[in-house]
Amino acid sequence: MRPLTVDSLNPALIKVEYAVRGELAIKAEEYRVRLEQGDANLPFDKIINSNIGNPQQRNLDQPPITFLRQIAALMEYPALAQLAPNAFPKDVVARAKELSDEIGSIGAYSHSQGVPLIRNSVAKYIQERDGYPANPNHIFLTAGASAGVTLFINLLIAPPTSGILIPIPQYPLYTATLAQHNGVGLPYHLDETQGWSTSPSSVEAAVEKAHKDGIVPKALVIINPGNPTGGVLDESTQESLVRICEKHSLVLLADEVYQTNIHKPDTHKFRSFKKIVRQLQSPVPLVSFHSISKGVIGECGRRGGYFECTNISDDVLAMIYKMVSVGLCPPVQGQVAVDTMLRPPKEGDESYPLWKKETDTIHEALRSRLKTMAERLNSLPGMSCVDSPGAMYLFPRIYLSQKAQEAAHAAGKKPDAFYALQLLDETGICVIPGSGFGQNEGEWHYRLTCLCPGVDEYVGKLEAFHRRFVEKYGTDSAA
Amino acid sequence: MRPLTVDSLNPALIKVEYAVRGELAIKAEEYRVRLEQGDANLPFDKIINSNIGNPQQRNLDQPPITFLRQIAALMEYPALAQLAPNAFPKDVVARAKELSDEIGSIGAYSHSQGVPLIRNSVAKYIQERDGYPANPNHIFLTAGASAGVTLFINLLIAPPTSGILIPIPQYPLYTATLAQHNGVGLPYHLDETQGWSTSPSSVEAAVEKAHKDGIVPKALVIINPGNPTGGVLDESTQESLVRICEKHSLVLLADEVYQTNIHKPDTHKFRSFKKIVRQLQSPVPLVSFHSISKGVIGECGRRGGYFECTNISDDVLAMIYKMVSVGLCPPVQGQVAVDTMLRPPKEGDESYPLWKKETDTIHEALRSRLKTMAERLNSLPGMSCVDSPGAMYLFPRIYLSQKAQEAAHAAGKKPDAFYALQLLDETGICVIPGSGFGQNEGEWHYRLTCLCPGVDEYVGKLEAFHRRFVEKYGTDSAA
Repeated sequence: MRPLTVDSLNPALIKVEYAVRGELAIKAEEYRVRLEQGDANLPFDKIINSNIGNPQQRNLDQPPITFLRQIAALMEYPALAQLAPNAFPKDVVARAKELSDEIGSIGAYSHSQGVPLIRNSVAKYIQERDGYPANPNHIFLTAGASAGVTLFINLLIAPPTSGILIPIPQYPLYTATLAQHNGVGLPYHLDETQGWSTSPSSVEAAVEKAHKDGIVPKALVIINPGNPTGGVLDESTQESLVRICEKHSLVLLADEVYQTNIHKPDTHKFRSFKKIVRQLQSPVPLVSFHSISKGVIGECGRRGGYFECTNISDDVLAMIYKMVSVGLCPPVQGQVAVDTMLRPPKEGDESYPLWKKETDTIHEALRSRLKTMAERLNSLPGMSCVDSPGAMYLFPRIYLSQKAQEAAHAAGKKPDAFYALQLLDETGICVIPGSGFGQNEGEWHYRLTCLCPGVDEYVGKLEAFHRRFVEKYGTDSAA
Repeated sequence: MRPLTVDSLNPALIKVEYAVRGELAIKAEEYRVRLEQGDANLPFDKIINSNIGNPQQRNLDQPPITFLRQIAALMEYPALAQLAPNAFPKDVVARAKELSDEIGSIGAYSHSQGVPLIRNSVAKYIQERDGYPANPNHIFLTAGASAGVTLFINLLIAPPTSGILIPIPQYPLYTATLAQHNGVGLPYHLDETQGWSTSPSSVEAAVEKAHKDGIVPKALVIINPGNPTGGVLDESTQESLVRICEKHSLVLLADEVYQTNIHKPDTHKFRSFKKIVRQLQSPVPLVSFHSISKGVIGECGRRGGYFECTNISDDVLAMIYKMVSVGLCPPVQGQVAVDTMLRPPKEGDESYPLWKKETDTIHEALRSRLKTMAERLNSLPGMSCVDSPGAMYLFPRIYLSQKAQEAAHAAGKKPDAFYALQLLDETGICVIPGSGFGQNEGEWHYRLTCLCPGVDEYVGKLEAFHRRFVEKYGTDSAA
């Protein structure tokens, strides 16, 4: 028989690239295993995974929110309410009972769209956030935001050639999923010189280019707050983007998973696209995605999230329901965590003081780390770094010299990957090269998270490495 | 702007059908809501969801395995080991500690392929089951078996026309996913007169037909024990099927999620295809799927499972890794449950007696219910029912009269859907018509689970309904 070869597989999948878990992350995992096995020949004693927004990962160790975990434990083993009556605050016991009464066993499949009571919680959260009503029947709970995004790209991409407008730089889930489903990514470039702002005219230009190239643009992806940039949109830009969707009959896919990660609340506010669309009384079909993986919850491993559909007809909703039903249901503990995230304890509840302290501490840690990191990276020779007001990443630009670029070329690597690989080899810090997200031709960046505690030691290592690199290769004259 | 319409969506998705959560299940959910809201006008007081293998669902109420839930609760909230030291057996505390030491927080993303320690547990289980080694690097943990199956269909279907051999009747995940990815289902028919056995010659015939039709057959799906049939393959059939895969260069996709659901162990044994392939020293590329959703664990809502790749090259494994990495990781609590399922307590462990009692009770309940149900349904006029040795379903044949078929036609329904809808309307029991799984032309069946407790009352309702139906419409002369 013929063996199974890569050549015989679906060629669309060969084009898929996902840098966040690509070459750098794979090499970091190999180093982690070597360290675990006692290898003493590496120039570092731990791996710092700054490649991915994974707050609770080892060596980052953001603590989970106790309220969430207590409810989850009671859902797993309801007898604990009797076996350990003093281990749980009263409001936790009450919430777990309310959820159990509705859900029954968390070991059972739920409704494919998500537990109805939890969809009600999501609708109430949205209504309070925006001041406009939300319909629980237009909300779908998911296994993280990625599952929802993948579903919509699969749904919207129709032959022969349709495309979706994506920001550059972008979170590579979008390009990966577009490649998987034979869709075309239609890039519009964010403006680093203006704090990674989104220019409506660059979106318009991308639409026009698509039409010229014979590609039907189906949707506009906006990531707000931005990933990898941390940019936060202002209201008038949001309004212009909605108008562009109206004009060109685009579905607006709003990736709003960092909506609670706002680090400069005096100058930057998160506004949902749901609110903007309603304010404008716009007919634009909107899908907005949220997740339990980010914010201050950081429960990535649990896989939970939701999307809300606005201005989407019942027959399209029925198609979406049919597709999610094939996957049976999102993980029920992920659904429970969505409820817990959006219905936190209130003042006066027994859990409130601890919940307040835990969430305030994490917000402040993210804020202050981002600020320190941006300042210190920005002051390095051959590097500039936008001080991001949102999300949990920085995307510094590195000005690589001709000599560095030639060395990279000789090593068979893109220049920013060449830089990031050396950073990993020398410090154990894993970042992702900008080429994994997209960037302007001839520019180089990397993305790193602000999740690492001990920011002094961490940034110290980044600085020392960068200075060594610049010493060895020089810097670009543009820097 | 143009509104978003179904016509503008990916046409492949319009063809997707998934009866297990289709018309019948949607109507059952509407009835459930009406009952919950106090509607007293329905002729039943509860919904029995026999449409889906969901053991822990309300009104079915198969209890979870305590050992699994205790470990899960400790992973959620490790402080419980101190807060409630008497609530957990010693072996549970030790296992949770071992897993926590390896995993860290269950709120963090894990390795995309699954936690290495848990993949080791899977490999040891497979090795003990089969007597042949298993490589943890060839094992991928998943969000249930469905996620793995979907991945492989996406991977194997390449343009212009490739197909996958599927049994008829089949679990409709296969046809749904094939439709989604523009693949062609190549049906081979199981033989109801021989206890739903698989005839290698019918598979050969399906391969030949595919070649004649210009379709490249890429893989052979075998569901063993069968769904919806409950059939269990004998060893010589398994060997013949492996030889067919060799001859025609087919990947063997072995859906083995019911491997521990064997109800007649004296006459029917489960043998993994991994063991058969190794015994034959066959080069056939094999992917075998397992799940925490079935067996006696029944933790569907948690979403956990794995697949093992055999005779699959490193570059294809790398492609698979890349694809799963885009989805980040399977739910970590699902991964933990895979470990708990495959490493149960041993004799002498504090948890063992309870675990043994719980699992024995569930095995016996499934066995005795299937037997009773098959006997009683088989003795009805106009119905015949194979007494399935495996899985958790029966797939009785109903002999519908010309009059019934005409009434169905007038109502715009397939005859078996017409029957199942009336069953639901009159009794609150939700089953799935055979047309959702595929059946021979002009034959009619339905699938129901053996998960409902109170088998006397349950079967009593099925019998009474069937007798009323036959009284009204008569029965087919072939019955």
